[in-house]
Formats: sequence, C-alpha cells, structure tokens
Amino acid sequence: MNFTVHVHVMPLKDLLDPQGKAVLGGLSNLGVSGVQDVRIGKKITLQIEAADKESAISMADVCAKKLLCNAVMEYYEIHID
Amino acid sequence: MNFTVHVHVMPLKDLLDPQGKAVLGGLSNLGVSGVQDVRIGKKITLQIEAADKESAISMADVCAKKLLCNAVMEYYEIHID
Repeated sequence: MNFTVHVHVMPLKDLLDPQGKAVLGGLSNLGVSGVQDVRIGKKITLQIEAADKESAISMADVCAKKLLCNAVMEYYEIHID
Repeated sequence: MNFTVHVHVMPLKDLLDPQGKAVLGGLSNLGVSGVQDVRIGKKITLQIEAADKESAISMADVCAKKLLCNAVMEYYEIHID
C-alpha cells in the first residue's frame, strides 16, 4: 500500500531561528501587526510503499534520522494521513 | 489571546521539486528503499495575538499572501492548534 507521510523538521525551541526573525521583521515592515514570533522549518512529504501504517511510519523515522533531520539543531515530528 | 498557527507552504503539485528529487536520490544512496517520491516545502509557525481563532487564521492568511508564499510556484495550507 502507498502511504503519504509528512515529516516536520523544526529548529530546536531553545535555539535562535534567524530565518524566522527575518520574516518577523519583514512582516512588521509590511504593516502586519499582531504576529509575535515566527519559526521556520521544513515539511517533507514522503510517498512510501509499505505493508501497513506502522512500517510506513518507522520507515519515515529512519529517513528522518539518517538524512532529513540534523538532531544537533532540529527536531522532527511524523504525521500520517 | 495567543494562537499558534502553522502555515505549510509546498511546491505546486504540477511543478518539479529538485530539492525533493535530490533527497530521494540521497535516501536511495543510503540504502533506504520503499520511498517513491519526496516533496519538500516549508512549515512556518506563527505566534499570533488575536481576539479569536478566526481572526488569527485570517491574519495568517494575510502573512502567507503577502510574504510567505510565492503563488507562482507554491501553495499554502493553514492549520491551527
């Protein structure tokens, strides 16, 4: 079966996110007020061929650990449709 | 009230995603099989101060239209916790 698995990779909460700070400044320059903080990460959508949901999730976990997420400065979450 | 709103910005489905193709190749080089397609986008988490959920969502929509999403090659979805 084919599963669509989303891996969300975000900068660790304790670390500064310069890209997010830049967007926050940009929004303020564009006159958008009310936004207090911005953090920017990646959303990776994988199409996985697997026997069941659990093995698709564990395969996405392997992908995240091996390649998608740099654990020194990022954490990841896995969501499946 | 403070709302956490997520804006997911992904490359349009009809367009080639070279970054995703590179990751697909990388996964195959690392010996991960079973992944058939990869698409990579951005996940932007906004902390928004607003009166209610609806106005937080509409504010995130303004942010996405004005700055976060390039409608020529990307589409966006808004999710709220």
